[in-house]
Amino acid sequence: MTTRIAVIGATGYTALELLKILARHPDADVVIATSRQEGELSLQDVHPSLTNSFDLPLTQLDVETIGAEVDFAFSCLPHAASANTVRGLTSAGVKVVDFSADYRLNDVAVYEKWYGVEHPDRERLGSVPYGLPEFYRDDIRNANLVANPGCYPTSAILALAPLLQGKLVSPQDIIVNSMSGVSGAGRNTDPAFQYCMSNESVKAYGVGTHRHAPEILQYCSSAAGETCELLFTPHLVPMHRGIFTTCYVRPSEGVSANDAMSALRETYCDEQFVRVVDHPVETKNVANTNYCDLAVFENGDRLVVVSAIDNLIKGAAGAAVQNFNLMCGYDESTALL
Amino acid sequence: MTTRIAVIGATGYTALELLKILARHPDADVVIATSRQEGELSLQDVHPSLTNSFDLPLTQLDVETIGAEVDFAFSCLPHAASANTVRGLTSAGVKVVDFSADYRLNDVAVYEKWYGVEHPDRERLGSVPYGLPEFYRDDIRNANLVANPGCYPTSAILALAPLLQGKLVSPQDIIVNSMSGVSGAGRNTDPAFQYCMSNESVKAYGVGTHRHAPEILQYCSSAAGETCELLFTPHLVPMHRGIFTTCYVRPSEGVSANDAMSALRETYCDEQFVRVVDHPVETKNVANTNYCDLAVFENGDRLVVVSAIDNLIKGAAGAAVQNFNLMCGYDESTALL
Amino acid sequence: MTTRIAVIGATGYTALELLKILARHPDADVVIATSRQEGELSLQDVHPSLTNSFDLPLTQLDVETIGAEVDFAFSCLPHAASANTVRGLTSAGVKVVDFSADYRLNDVAVYEKWYGVEHPDRERLGSVPYGLPEFYRDDIRNANLVANPGCYPTSAILALAPLLQGKLVSPQDIIVNSMSGVSGAGRNTDPAFQYCMSNESVKAYGVGTHRHAPEILQYCSSAAGETCELLFTPHLVPMHRGIFTTCYVRPSEGVSANDAMSALRETYCDEQFVRVVDHPVETKNVANTNYCDLAVFENGDRLVVVSAIDNLIKGAAGAAVQNFNLMCGYDESTALL
Amino acid sequence: MTTRIAVIGATGYTALELLKILARHPDADVVIATSRQEGELSLQDVHPSLTNSFDLPLTQLDVETIGAEVDFAFSCLPHAASANTVRGLTSAGVKVVDFSADYRLNDVAVYEKWYGVEHPDRERLGSVPYGLPEFYRDDIRNANLVANPGCYPTSAILALAPLLQGKLVSPQDIIVNSMSGVSGAGRNTDPAFQYCMSNESVKAYGVGTHRHAPEILQYCSSAAGETCELLFTPHLVPMHRGIFTTCYVRPSEGVSANDAMSALRETYCDEQFVRVVDHPVETKNVANTNYCDLAVFENGDRLVVVSAIDNLIKGAAGAAVQNFNLMCGYDESTALL
Repeated sequence: MTTRIAVIGATGYTALELLKILARHPDADVVIATSRQEGELSLQDVHPSLTNSFDLPLTQLDVETIGAEVDFAFSCLPHAASANTVRGLTSAGVKVVDFSADYRLNDVAVYEKWYGVEHPDRERLGSVPYGLPEFYRDDIRNANLVANPGCYPTSAILALAPLLQGKLVSPQDIIVNSMSGVSGAGRNTDPAFQYCMSNESVKAYGVGTHRHAPEILQYCSSAAGETCELLFTPHLVPMHRGIFTTCYVRPSEGVSANDAMSALRETYCDEQFVRVVDHPVETKNVANTNYCDLAVFENGDRLVVVSAIDNLIKGAAGAAVQNFNLMCGYDESTALL
Repeated sequence: MTTRIAVIGATGYTALELLKILARHPDADVVIATSRQEGELSLQDVHPSLTNSFDLPLTQLDVETIGAEVDFAFSCLPHAASANTVRGLTSAGVKVVDFSADYRLNDVAVYEKWYGVEHPDRERLGSVPYGLPEFYRDDIRNANLVANPGCYPTSAILALAPLLQGKLVSPQDIIVNSMSGVSGAGRNTDPAFQYCMSNESVKAYGVGTHRHAPEILQYCSSAAGETCELLFTPHLVPMHRGIFTTCYVRPSEGVSANDAMSALRETYCDEQFVRVVDHPVETKNVANTNYCDLAVFENGDRLVVVSAIDNLIKGAAGAAVQNFNLMCGYDESTALL
Repeated sequence: MTTRIAVIGATGYTALELLKILARHPDADVVIATSRQEGELSLQDVHPSLTNSFDLPLTQLDVETIGAEVDFAFSCLPHAASANTVRGLTSAGVKVVDFSADYRLNDVAVYEKWYGVEHPDRERLGSVPYGLPEFYRDDIRNANLVANPGCYPTSAILALAPLLQGKLVSPQDIIVNSMSGVSGAGRNTDPAFQYCMSNESVKAYGVGTHRHAPEILQYCSSAAGETCELLFTPHLVPMHRGIFTTCYVRPSEGVSANDAMSALRETYCDEQFVRVVDHPVETKNVANTNYCDLAVFENGDRLVVVSAIDNLIKGAAGAAVQNFNLMCGYDESTALL
Repeated sequence: MTTRIAVIGATGYTALELLKILARHPDADVVIATSRQEGELSLQDVHPSLTNSFDLPLTQLDVETIGAEVDFAFSCLPHAASANTVRGLTSAGVKVVDFSADYRLNDVAVYEKWYGVEHPDRERLGSVPYGLPEFYRDDIRNANLVANPGCYPTSAILALAPLLQGKLVSPQDIIVNSMSGVSGAGRNTDPAFQYCMSNESVKAYGVGTHRHAPEILQYCSSAAGETCELLFTPHLVPMHRGIFTTCYVRPSEGVSANDAMSALRETYCDEQFVRVVDHPVETKNVANTNYCDLAVFENGDRLVVVSAIDNLIKGAAGAAVQNFNLMCGYDESTALL
């Protein structure tokens, strides 16, 4: 039972990964790929690596056409633009996974403060499931719209939520320190992301101002059952793909690293895409996969929870297909192993 | 007035950087280069990039010969081995900069716990200046032995010490999160440092067990005037050189990021090699230089102090030559700008 | 109809790629993985990225056991060692793809000159199909032993053979200039392949002495119907995976780059894994795929034929699975798209 | 005796390297830095790594002011724009090193064909020395304008000219195959040079159309005393800096690789910046230096001459300062060792 699919905003790095995964999916049939920017180009003009896999023109976004021709859409549009489009699509009966941040935050005020725009679809905030199947699988299964998680939040929430939920660590005084490969910046023409500016260099950026901070906070607080106090600092490191997150948390009285590892193992024992590992967690081991690797260490009076994902896969396109599989009734891991 | 120099343990990455700097130094004359491992090799066999700069054989370490022939030695030996040799050299009247950790810690018990060996020169611990000229310049000038700082400690102490000294931040609850390029591992044949294992990957390592932790703690505590509570977590990132350190500290009541920036500026206003900068701190800007770049940000109720150095230069060979210049009465920046 | 499989010599980079592909293959069941070097280790101890995909111990190679338990073996052993083992396996009725060079050359004397050892299975040379399905598909289908091609030869032969076969270019005066990512050196502890020695550097190596030269020559000569005159020079470039080959050939009278492109297109029109492309050929577009991308340019009085493959996939593990699929009657592209 | 200097077009990668070298030069005083593109920016805004080394505004190019205030100018402008400016500067008595291609080719027609513009200073073509001191030192010393060589041509001409001049190799059938790091593309906002597009990838580009081809041809022909027949193919490899050039030449009867090595050694025996080496030639050994490393190998009936430079130093800024030193009467190696 094939699903007809539109990929909206098909020229970015995330869309490329999505298309590579969908090319392997036996029941996914991508029939529309849109782009605002390109002229008479085809998908393979923009993504030469897709040659032979797809033979599709890039078309202008037209919600009506998409509504008529597909069952499912992945929206890779920027925030605000995305919600505007998603509204039309869901009205037309199209199921949607939205890669943007538009439906991730529950509170309109928080959204509008961090994103600096009026939300185009306010009334729906709070009712759209967050596309982290490890925590919201049933909601996702029944949804016609899912908010695909941000890359940093995925790495942080998978690490922290079970420990907060189980009261093994304090909801206060949490530091989330992340490092991302350069693809996290998207297909960005900012000179800062040129090869010679990014290679052989590390920097912090968006310290105190990164938009993934309120997203991490919201879902950690939700797990903790109370508002967490949490800092987030992202860094850029010279690699293509991968996020490594180091979380510093205060253990509850008597809780050891082993206890925390056990709690993570228990939470994820039936999850195919989260591995609690004894070997070193490193992004290399999860690159080009939908896995998240986790481990916990002791360091002084803190626990250090580390997490590695491929920002383009488990942090974006892989999670999106995982959600797609759930929403369409396919096996959750189809095309992802 | 030329100084005759021995480089002891001349085959590593740090020694290579040291030799490159000394080749540019008008008053440095390297006359001996030793190696335990090589046969009938010359310096340029091991370091082809030094061809034309040096024409020296690699000889076996012989303290007596060195004592007779040189005025100054750089010891690039591993810990314990280094102190053993340094003892003989200083007895023979040779001034020494020791790259190893042997003389960095004041407390024998701390040394022996973290390094797992008996210290070969216990009585001298506590009286050897730490080679961070920004804080110990006068002691270094008058010393015949200087303990060259570790790479991570340099990046952390330059960031934290002025703030601790000025009571602008709490000595409690400090988190030092660092990322280093792969050269920090030295000329290491461990498969983990092969190109294909290190490239395109990030990992934490030595969480809670890295030997630079007590060194950072000692010098931060010394600046604070009381024992700090401090965690250190290093990470490996896929680049050749550079350390980026992100320190999370609690500001004292009413202290802003700007206040902290001002304090750093004041401390370092006469320092040639520490720059408190408004532009983004990134390792690219200090690569192949003796600079340390610093900046401070606010993030929630914390201050985030970031620091970038070249681990091989300001974190090792550059600092060593800075110390050499002070110990021999040369201009401190000779060969370093 | 599942095939039971042994992977012999399972610790290298090529074996890792092979196992990743086999994990996605619906009819492949890896039941034995051997290693000469490891103690009580499992596959996932050596390849942490395989955690969850395989749960197999690494065992010592035992031909008898393998003969009794599997239908198919991939031999990733070094040359000479491989032929010795392969002999036993095929005698026991196991079908084999051999990754080593042992069965690629037809002429014992050529083999023994370039590999410097006596061939352990001389009589079989010349009768084992070369595992390049684009040219030897029928032979492969009917074989119980296939010689998996070398990585450089794959990139060169796919580029040159159709043009030589069609007499579009001269068999004389061919220059094959290749660049490989570092994984081509295998899981090698030679210090030359450490991150800090390979990163940010390019070099030629094995000029005039690389063992892939006679292999390229043999199969190009076979396509030309006469002995070619051909030089091969490999280079190491700082990336994990990928080979880019630039071939300089003399066109026959009146043959243009377009003519050559047309000839390549015609040869490969039904091939799923060879793409003759108008966009720039670059290794990025074929990384992690079984594709070979090809294009032809004019440069003075020469044609320049360029070719890109992933050395670990189309240049090794992917080709091996392509051969496995043919030998076992599966669809040729299973697990490879 | 200090020289007052203007750097014209100071925002690119080459200008940055030039400024780093000039910062170390005891007799160079950079007083003007121009940029067409920036607003009220300073040099260190654009090049943060120069903080503390320079404190200069970026000003609009004004030939009259420059003529009045400086003795020497480095023009880092694009072709055509550069000659226009250089004309005014030399008229005003300013000595100039021109980084552009404007004065490298002797033949106006060749220039206009390859560069596609009318030459703004035609009459001077053919009388401006080519800034390769190894071959044109005396002319450079007496010139008020020098054409700084292209990066690829430097690597090729240093490798080939002595062999052509000595008739050790044929002037026919020469293939120059080069690989460059990404900085060769300049501070280019073309998406092709973004980190994620350049990293982990190799490609050929400009096959048959690269503008350095006629430059290599002209100076090789000049060395040979007759017009050479020569192909040039550049490739992009994933590193910041460095060019590796592999030249395929036909030796004259009886000429071995050793003979060619000897000829190179003899030609360059008094040169400080060309090393004919027995160890592997690799770009790592010349990175951040003004050296060119050379070696010769036999491969079939060809000689393979390999050459490595840092494209930004010996291939641009280092050569420029070498020329500056000669033109101003300083020691040729000042600030370059």
